Amino acid sequence: VTTKSGAIVVGVGDELLAGRIDDTNARLLSVVLRRAGYPVLRREVVGDDPDAIAVVVGRARADAAVVVVTGGLGPTGDDLTRFGIAKAFGAALRRDATAEATLRDAYARRGRPLPPGSLVQADIPEGFAAAPNARGTAPGLLRAADDGVLLAAPGVPAELEGMLDEILLPILATRPERGTPPKALQITTAGLAEAEIGALLSDLLIRGRDPIAGSYPKSGRVVLTLETFREGADADLALKVDAETIRDRVGSAFVGFGDLKLNEVVVRAAIEKKTTLAVAESLTGGLVSDGVVEVPGASAVFVAGIAAYKDEAKRAVLGVRAETLDAHGAVSEACAREMAEGARRLTGADVALATTGIAGPDGGSIEKPVGTTWFAIADAAGTVANRRVFLGGRAEIRAYARERAFDLLRRRFFGLPLDSAVKDGAGS
Amino acid sequence: VTTKSGAIVVGVGDELLAGRIDDTNARLLSVVLRRAGYPVLRREVVGDDPDAIAVVVGRARADAAVVVVTGGLGPTGDDLTRFGIAKAFGAALRRDATAEATLRDAYARRGRPLPPGSLVQADIPEGFAAAPNARGTAPGLLRAADDGVLLAAPGVPAELEGMLDEILLPILATRPERGTPPKALQITTAGLAEAEIGALLSDLLIRGRDPIAGSYPKSGRVVLTLETFREGADADLALKVDAETIRDRVGSAFVGFGDLKLNEVVVRAAIEKKTTLAVAESLTGGLVSDGVVEVPGASAVFVAGIAAYKDEAKRAVLGVRAETLDAHGAVSEACAREMAEGARRLTGADVALATTGIAGPDGGSIEKPVGTTWFAIADAAGTVANRRVFLGGRAEIRAYARERAFDLLRRRFFGLPLDSAVKDGAGS
Repeated sequence: VTTKSGAIVVGVGDELLAGRIDDTNARLLSVVLRRAGYPVLRREVVGDDPDAIAVVVGRARADAAVVVVTGGLGPTGDDLTRFGIAKAFGAALRRDATAEATLRDAYARRGRPLPPGSLVQADIPEGFAAAPNARGTAPGLLRAADDGVLLAAPGVPAELEGMLDEILLPILATRPERGTPPKALQITTAGLAEAEIGALLSDLLIRGRDPIAGSYPKSGRVVLTLETFREGADADLALKVDAETIRDRVGSAFVGFGDLKLNEVVVRAAIEKKTTLAVAESLTGGLVSDGVVEVPGASAVFVAGIAAYKDEAKRAVLGVRAETLDAHGAVSEACAREMAEGARRLTGADVALATTGIAGPDGGSIEKPVGTTWFAIADAAGTVANRRVFLGGRAEIRAYARERAFDLLRRRFFGLPLDSAVKDGAGS
Repeated sequence: VTTKSGAIVVGVGDELLAGRIDDTNARLLSVVLRRAGYPVLRREVVGDDPDAIAVVVGRARADAAVVVVTGGLGPTGDDLTRFGIAKAFGAALRRDATAEATLRDAYARRGRPLPPGSLVQADIPEGFAAAPNARGTAPGLLRAADDGVLLAAPGVPAELEGMLDEILLPILATRPERGTPPKALQITTAGLAEAEIGALLSDLLIRGRDPIAGSYPKSGRVVLTLETFREGADADLALKVDAETIRDRVGSAFVGFGDLKLNEVVVRAAIEKKTTLAVAESLTGGLVSDGVVEVPGASAVFVAGIAAYKDEAKRAVLGVRAETLDAHGAVSEACAREMAEGARRLTGADVALATTGIAGPDGGSIEKPVGTTWFAIADAAGTVANRRVFLGGRAEIRAYARERAFDLLRRRFFGLPLDSAVKDGAGS
């Protein structure tokens, strides 16, 4: 049994070193391994060079109990991770029969011939096992021995995540080198900016405090993380006290405990309440509709989404009146209301939401700057409307609008005010 | 003069290793240093620990001509980079009079008292100079000697960028270790898997070749990068020859030169051809519609998108016949065709695309496994249909289907076959 602890993360790829792609896997692994009791001691990125991979992997396994290598496991000539790892361990590569059968089967199911050279993905270093890849074709390489654990996984984020959940974490949970992870609790808020949250919680967001609070802005949401190294009931109590303080201070911006997605919160609430949904989108052009369909089980409540981008479509499909468009324009409270009401009428849904705004880069004015967005929600109780002006480029404006749409549905579903009140100086 | 070349990038910070923030500096440095003639050989991230910093910095200066360290230069107790660097060089720290005066001046100008302990930022290792920070208070640490260059810069991206432009790059431009930056050319393909591309181009994707080709799979596309270290007209010719070879071999999968997004290619072509578009989506539920609206200028050609998720909506809004749904189900060629034709009729668009499939996790069968997706395109020339079976989770299946939809529109627009022919063993 080793006296090593912690983990080292190694990313492989010339495209990483050239700065062509972001190394999002390193951050994911940092979070996941830390929570599993293996704090990351070091991260490294090397190119597609078997010698360099061998040096870095050799160093990593000497320094840490767990090593995770990502990337370079595909079938092409610049996928060289298996050769570097084999070299680091002085192991020969041998063809794995199960991995070969799995590869052949994956192509057969798609009705495509197996490309020449792709069986290299079934070549596994001695002492390693082929780690099944539930979301792709390239298997991973796994070694779990007394002197440590090494997983080499594909660089494709979804495939890596699958291997972590299904293969690595169950192994790590049983190992003696496992440390005590901090106990953590997350809280999702929506409708307040990070700076507003920061002002409300300034006494909790102090370095060295335990529990320590951190705030991480995500599109349209702020996720707060509380972490404590206290143990047992003491830890739970400390987290609970701070969590209640936060819940109380953020008011209607409190979405729930955990890192919650607003579309999931809304669609699950609709499923539970047996409330059917429809969407009429201009600015967001399908993003809100997509956010509904993204949630498994959405088919029980989602009737239809209409992306009515041109004024003709708003009139012909949704029944927005020509006078409304003439008098107020498409980006107006009146148009948003008629879009929502039209979508509800057309689809027979219980609740219909509409968006209309200016995503830019052109089309803004002093009165209606780029980012101006009107929302409306029509339901049995009537129609409500709400306006926001989002900052950023076209993509950010549309992404914020999508999240705001779901936050408005959340607030409407749970009888909350459509806007969070910001109390000056509260909490400070 | 050293025989070392290239650069190593070191990020310092517990918040990086805990995964609380993204290491955006590493990618920026990768791009900037490579363009300056110092390809990045390795990237490392370490925590706020002077011993670990000393080990990594010592290793980095032994392996590369240029080392850039970011983060850990501030005034608080966990800013320990200067101590780690001093240790790596066996150098004592001494107070720098100019740096001290600059710090005192910065606070005086803001009318704020100098916080206790902040003069540690003026402590510089012997053999280093204080690097002025035009955008913040903490100076950097700079050493430019015969055996290599080291810059330690703040982790704040704007401050780092300022120091790169104003201090590091002018020094690097004059050093003998400077390499020739590669000339590069990118090619986007769609409709062939990375392994299929790899098989077609196996003679080009070989380490050590010049130009060297690399392939990077992105959702629904494969982007190829050709790079050469040849110079002048020789470089241009070598890139052109290989590019033409690739273009010829991948056939209808060739999208264009550059890292091109399929939705942008399609919408720009529609704008140019003055062809109006409509979309009817089930599986993708708004993703394709969103992909159209994402492109600036889409309003000139996009009429409307209908996310008809439930069968009732397919019937009521798009006019899919009840007999079709009864006989074939919603995930069928017949339904896809009627959806596309219905959307074209409803919106009056020149071209309408439809998607219908099984995103999972439930709803699959042996005959129609999860991932089965039918596409149809209706235009003045008639209606065509196409089927794919995508692997992965719900999110991946829907994302692949979105990209495939745009690739089908691209192929239809440019008169290409809907599927790339895969020739067994071609190119190998």
